[in-house]
Amino acid sequence: MSNAPHLTFDLDTAGVSRGHLIVPGGADRGELLLPVFGLNKGEGPRLLVTGGNHGNELEGPLVARRLIERLPNAQTCGRVIVLPVLNPLAVEARSSNTPLDGLDLNRVFPGRADGSVIERIADAVSRVLLPMAEIVFDLHSFGPAWDCPPAVMTHPIADADLLAKTLQMAEAFKLPVTLLWEHYDTAGMFDSWAHSQGKLFVCAEFGGGTVSAEALAVYEAGLRNALVALGLVEGQVENVSLSHNESIQTLETLVSDKLKSPARGIFEPRCSVLDEVKQGDLIGILHPMDSLSAESIGIRAPRPSIVLAIGSGAHVDRNEGVAFLARPLKILN
Amino acid sequence: MSNAPHLTFDLDTAGVSRGHLIVPGGADRGELLLPVFGLNKGEGPRLLVTGGNHGNELEGPLVARRLIERLPNAQTCGRVIVLPVLNPLAVEARSSNTPLDGLDLNRVFPGRADGSVIERIADAVSRVLLPMAEIVFDLHSFGPAWDCPPAVMTHPIADADLLAKTLQMAEAFKLPVTLLWEHYDTAGMFDSWAHSQGKLFVCAEFGGGTVSAEALAVYEAGLRNALVALGLVEGQVENVSLSHNESIQTLETLVSDKLKSPARGIFEPRCSVLDEVKQGDLIGILHPMDSLSAESIGIRAPRPSIVLAIGSGAHVDRNEGVAFLARPLKILN
Repeated sequence: MSNAPHLTFDLDTAGVSRGHLIVPGGADRGELLLPVFGLNKGEGPRLLVTGGNHGNELEGPLVARRLIERLPNAQTCGRVIVLPVLNPLAVEARSSNTPLDGLDLNRVFPGRADGSVIERIADAVSRVLLPMAEIVFDLHSFGPAWDCPPAVMTHPIADADLLAKTLQMAEAFKLPVTLLWEHYDTAGMFDSWAHSQGKLFVCAEFGGGTVSAEALAVYEAGLRNALVALGLVEGQVENVSLSHNESIQTLETLVSDKLKSPARGIFEPRCSVLDEVKQGDLIGILHPMDSLSAESIGIRAPRPSIVLAIGSGAHVDRNEGVAFLARPLKILN
Repeated sequence: MSNAPHLTFDLDTAGVSRGHLIVPGGADRGELLLPVFGLNKGEGPRLLVTGGNHGNELEGPLVARRLIERLPNAQTCGRVIVLPVLNPLAVEARSSNTPLDGLDLNRVFPGRADGSVIERIADAVSRVLLPMAEIVFDLHSFGPAWDCPPAVMTHPIADADLLAKTLQMAEAFKLPVTLLWEHYDTAGMFDSWAHSQGKLFVCAEFGGGTVSAEALAVYEAGLRNALVALGLVEGQVENVSLSHNESIQTLETLVSDKLKSPARGIFEPRCSVLDEVKQGDLIGILHPMDSLSAESIGIRAPRPSIVLAIGSGAHVDRNEGVAFLARPLKILN
């Protein structure tokens, strides 16, 4: 038993409980202790909130911490489990993935008990925590190299009923953007696995760039809206926005909406998040570094779109993403 | 001669010239070619503009590129030399320093001809470009892990006359903040070396966080203001600001104004850039990751201050900087 993932405490205890999810050791490193908070108020929705899936998206862990602080005085029914940091090794390394094995936690679900440390984390979450919840909020963000609005998203789900419920849940955050995000490579994602287990799973993409006090207040309010919608806490839903967001929109981004860099160099953004662009409008410019006479390359909108996210002046490789476009979601509205 | 740093072209040519600064090879890697632009309009100020001193501060290279685009139609006298990327190896690695030798280019000036690649870059700039200029603008920024306003700064200079001229030059950018920045560790900085050579040197600290189209427009306008003040281009000076900046201020930050993390963990910012804070006001909170019961630690203002820059939710080590405070500069105004 000591070699199986387990909790150090009983989440069925009434009221607040705290302890750790034990991820057993393996060939690459010893046992890992992930702090977990639980609040059991009996009958009602069973929600799991996770953050820190990627180590350079720290809005999630911070908003999860705030939730833990507020829930004892706010939650009126049901059960909430909060695991603020899924991947402390990546957080400490300030990188998306864990340097130890180079793996992306969000591509190895449901994990392997005899795998690398990241596969063992996924295994522990899949086997110990996921079965206890019917709804999951996984708190991500676009990270420091992107500018984008606070959003809640889901990938397409084959089960149309589950997709509709998921979009409805995402819209309940009342964040500026609710997004249906087409993605080639969804195998091993936490959401795909949770969907396969029949769970309602939404993924917050809490903006990008710096994590400011203002942004955290917006994200916290969005999460609170969702808890109110679930009936876990009482209160009024409030519309939340950052200055650059005028309205709340439900958008769709397709695989073909990801604009890639035509060459290696420094990307210069030439438009802003949530700008409406026409076909041919300039999105950004790619500047090769090796020569000033080398032509800088304009990257243009292939069709009328809304700018969902734009790269932040970083050095990029050829074919690396520099912008995501989007358009109003038509299939359900 | 082929083993000494040199330019591939003659900067004394009238009008526009382009080519490379050749940094000779050494034990660690071969020759490096840094693209250089020159515009010679005869008599007048001689200005050197550099960017990309640190590899994760790309506002400078982008604004330098824009300058190269605009100068041929704008410059009316004098000479301007532009080197958009001092340290392409760090830019490609997306890190402040160069992975090859781990050295900070801004701590090795004036460099060494027989040193590592970064010392050879500093040597080439010090020996070939610096003697041709009387004024230097080195375009930095706070990088992705900080929120801070667009600023132009100088470290204290022993020569009071040069300090006064430098602050005046910095204020000519008309960016929201002009800063006198006390620093323990100025040995080997580009500015210290240039000051020792009697040059007027200002360092732009073009904000932090993401490099947005809006931010680039502000920085470009600031640089243009400085060129107008120098008489290199004709035009009107304009006040420039980002939304969070209400006024233009000249501030001072002391060594004791750098607030450090009391422990390892995730830093949560609790105030905003340019906020005025009283003694004891909460600046941020440090959350250790290993336990939810471990007390989170409040980081408070030690005295009345203006928040100059605040860390952006990153994981930090004990004693790592999380905020810089400042106050109005009194010595000269």
